[in-house]
Amino acid sequence: MGTRLGELVERLGGQLVGDPNLEVIGIAPLTDAGASHISFLSNSKFRSQAGQSQAAAMIVSAADDAIVAEQFQGARIVVKNPYVYFARAAQYFESLTAIVPPAGIHPSAVVHESARVDASAHIGPQVTVEAGAVVGARAVIDAGCYIGREAVVGADTHFFANVTFHARCRIGQRGIIHSGAVIGTDGFGFANEGGVYIKIPQVGCVVIGDDVDIGANTTIDRGALADTIIEDGVKLDNQIQIGHNCHIGAHTAMAGCVGVAGSAKIGKYCTFGGAAMVLGHLTIADHVHVSSGSMVSRSILEAGQYTGFYPLAKNSEWEKSAAIVRNLSAMRDKIRALEKTIKTITNQDES
Amino acid sequence: MGTRLGELVERLGGQLVGDPNLEVIGIAPLTDAGASHISFLSNSKFRSQAGQSQAAAMIVSAADDAIVAEQFQGARIVVKNPYVYFARAAQYFESLTAIVPPAGIHPSAVVHESARVDASAHIGPQVTVEAGAVVGARAVIDAGCYIGREAVVGADTHFFANVTFHARCRIGQRGIIHSGAVIGTDGFGFANEGGVYIKIPQVGCVVIGDDVDIGANTTIDRGALADTIIEDGVKLDNQIQIGHNCHIGAHTAMAGCVGVAGSAKIGKYCTFGGAAMVLGHLTIADHVHVSSGSMVSRSILEAGQYTGFYPLAKNSEWEKSAAIVRNLSAMRDKIRALEKTIKTITNQDES
Amino acid sequence: MGTRLGELVERLGGQLVGDPNLEVIGIAPLTDAGASHISFLSNSKFRSQAGQSQAAAMIVSAADDAIVAEQFQGARIVVKNPYVYFARAAQYFESLTAIVPPAGIHPSAVVHESARVDASAHIGPQVTVEAGAVVGARAVIDAGCYIGREAVVGADTHFFANVTFHARCRIGQRGIIHSGAVIGTDGFGFANEGGVYIKIPQVGCVVIGDDVDIGANTTIDRGALADTIIEDGVKLDNQIQIGHNCHIGAHTAMAGCVGVAGSAKIGKYCTFGGAAMVLGHLTIADHVHVSSGSMVSRSILEAGQYTGFYPLAKNSEWEKSAAIVRNLSAMRDKIRALEKTIKTITNQDES
Repeated sequence: MGTRLGELVERLGGQLVGDPNLEVIGIAPLTDAGASHISFLSNSKFRSQAGQSQAAAMIVSAADDAIVAEQFQGARIVVKNPYVYFARAAQYFESLTAIVPPAGIHPSAVVHESARVDASAHIGPQVTVEAGAVVGARAVIDAGCYIGREAVVGADTHFFANVTFHARCRIGQRGIIHSGAVIGTDGFGFANEGGVYIKIPQVGCVVIGDDVDIGANTTIDRGALADTIIEDGVKLDNQIQIGHNCHIGAHTAMAGCVGVAGSAKIGKYCTFGGAAMVLGHLTIADHVHVSSGSMVSRSILEAGQYTGFYPLAKNSEWEKSAAIVRNLSAMRDKIRALEKTIKTITNQDES
Repeated sequence: MGTRLGELVERLGGQLVGDPNLEVIGIAPLTDAGASHISFLSNSKFRSQAGQSQAAAMIVSAADDAIVAEQFQGARIVVKNPYVYFARAAQYFESLTAIVPPAGIHPSAVVHESARVDASAHIGPQVTVEAGAVVGARAVIDAGCYIGREAVVGADTHFFANVTFHARCRIGQRGIIHSGAVIGTDGFGFANEGGVYIKIPQVGCVVIGDDVDIGANTTIDRGALADTIIEDGVKLDNQIQIGHNCHIGAHTAMAGCVGVAGSAKIGKYCTFGGAAMVLGHLTIADHVHVSSGSMVSRSILEAGQYTGFYPLAKNSEWEKSAAIVRNLSAMRDKIRALEKTIKTITNQDES
Repeated sequence: MGTRLGELVERLGGQLVGDPNLEVIGIAPLTDAGASHISFLSNSKFRSQAGQSQAAAMIVSAADDAIVAEQFQGARIVVKNPYVYFARAAQYFESLTAIVPPAGIHPSAVVHESARVDASAHIGPQVTVEAGAVVGARAVIDAGCYIGREAVVGADTHFFANVTFHARCRIGQRGIIHSGAVIGTDGFGFANEGGVYIKIPQVGCVVIGDDVDIGANTTIDRGALADTIIEDGVKLDNQIQIGHNCHIGAHTAMAGCVGVAGSAKIGKYCTFGGAAMVLGHLTIADHVHVSSGSMVSRSILEAGQYTGFYPLAKNSEWEKSAAIVRNLSAMRDKIRALEKTIKTITNQDES
């Protein structure tokens, strides 16, 4: 179930220093790896751990190779970016043991006669596929998923168990949607008439590009009049909420529990730390990085790192600082009074 | 698939200035609307956009009508509240094309023989309805939903795919529950005995009024001894958590990711911005508005707008301000020392 | 459907002062209890309510008993910890009316022939159990659940409807997983190559101990290389996100909407208030208590209570204080300038 180092390098590149016929069965961290594993050094500060690792082979950068070579006894694969190489090698090892679900529709699934499911796709048990939906080549739809009317699932896309994908929404190729995610639910749109809310029908949909990953229990609302757009390569972690009419630029990543209110327009190559929140109708430029737990309450038009959360303290200390925060304007007034008094004194001195 | 302007005004009211026989097929925003759309001006600051819109007809307020009439070439429907009228018109257009699911129980659904499902209700594929449950007239229960023992679903209420609605919970008429929502799960109640938690059975249920909307993946816990209550007209967005024994007053709305801890009593006509949090056992008066990202840690007995989140800044600036926040009591002490010194100086001067 | 007081005390302990043949049918709060209920006094400050309660019997501590006895007419059960006794009594009352689902597999469930389901377990409608999975004695798997390949569910564990439990994950005995929870989804692991994310396969799993409760729509990611660990007795409320490779110590409890980023190591007997957030790779000691809404951005190595959220205020006051927070370094500079000026003045005075 493993591979030879020579085979690995042939597939993934890199310069092998060591025996190409050495067999390895998987990847392990520096301290856990044994004689049948390869490991990787992605951060120079762990060089000494790498030196002492029991791994059969080590993925290293050219910059670290000389020093690792002095201490490490095993083979080395010298690469440009060890962490990226690790990811690709891990994908390769996984492919060796992955169980590919069989093509075809499980007898317990309910697939409407007008749906077009590619013959190479897998539709698992208890799935429902509504009228006019399209499921592409080699797509895998695991148990309990729901695919709404005229929704489109691209080739090689994988829905884990219990995904809900509503009518007319579309996802491209090589996507992953994790369990419990809900795509294309109605946006939160109401008109208020004397205190009572009147529902605004949400007639847009959600359009998702290629290579997009969506985490477990994440929700993405369909657009009100236009569509909600998720561009290529976006990665969303679990329990994220994306409001209606949002536009998320390509290759932006969001960690768990992030919330984005409706009609926010977020650039490409951004990152959002866990539980960051973005208010509605804001614009976020490309390459903006928002720290965890930060509330974005205004547009950010310049790339950079932004933060806004209250620093943690022992509760007793927090109580003191919070009490002062509540009265900061009183403190400012005191300082102004002091400045005035001192000015008077100084003027008297000068007089 | 469209309607005549005359037909629209006959149904929804408003004063038509233009040809009642003009056909329109839907609603679009000011800048997107074409010759077969109507559009609407809900905010006077977009008057100039309205003037240049290509829409066949424009919904306007009496206040804006004169100015719009000068520039806009199409028909006008003059109404009291254009946004509310837009909502109703959009509902009407949607009703023209909506696919009403057929009455009856899908053969793949599992409905207990003692459940009472109205003959006009729709029970979709892969649904489970437990013993003694009741599903009212014209209710729509989409694929994969679960309705627990003795639960009650009112007339014209719609559960989207994969809703979980637990035993003995009740929802009134014209409600909507979106996919992935879980109603009536056990509240988080434990007694602690020497560090170990002993579960307190949660024997209340969740009672939901009429015209309530509940968002995707929102969770509402059943009461411990009494019930959790959601009054008429409440609108909950996605990913909201409502703890056991909460009481949410009529026509209160909460945006995505809000959390309300157990036994909070929230008034009528309140609004909560996204990711606002309310601690347990608090009381919130009617007409309270809590800003996004704000932590409500004490009862609010007076109507108004309340806020509490750390302002966002460039990370380097946040680091400076956060370091000072951590040491605000030191700053206060410095100011006090300054005041004392100055008092001494001033007294000396006066002496 | 009730019990005699004598029977209750025989099962649960406590000293009964009153008629052992008195029949009671359930537990109710002090003010709601009637002549067929027992009630409980778990906090001395409600003594006067206890005195006036109409309950048939009162659970009291030895410390409160003398005073309650003066006013309360009913029977008393004197115990060490009234709240714990209440929990156990409530469990007993619930057991009297609980409907135990029948052993066996519902005909609509899809259970792979290689799965091992104990003959005493219940597999509900529309469930899927994949190849090699194991379901223990008396386990209850409600409608619509998914149990992945080679996953293991311990004896007496209960999955409510629509739980997703992925391949190779394990949960011990007497656990509860509530509806919509997703256990063992891929962790959020990517290597970044020139802005594009390369997925790192997540080959660990989730290992959950005994007596663990997991709330509705909570998500726990599987480990990247090693496993995510949830120790015995952990209690997680709804909508919690636990990242890959986390380790949660025994008897730690987290309220709703908490987020824990990857590789955090959290001690035993900790508590986390609602919506608290923990960054990745941190270490939290045993007996740490984090307040609701607090962002834990550094390791906490000492037991105690920790807090960090911005205090709530009327919006107009918050705007003032937030503006000053943004400019705290300017305020600090002013104070320094004042100190310098005063020093000069004082020195002049002394000179």
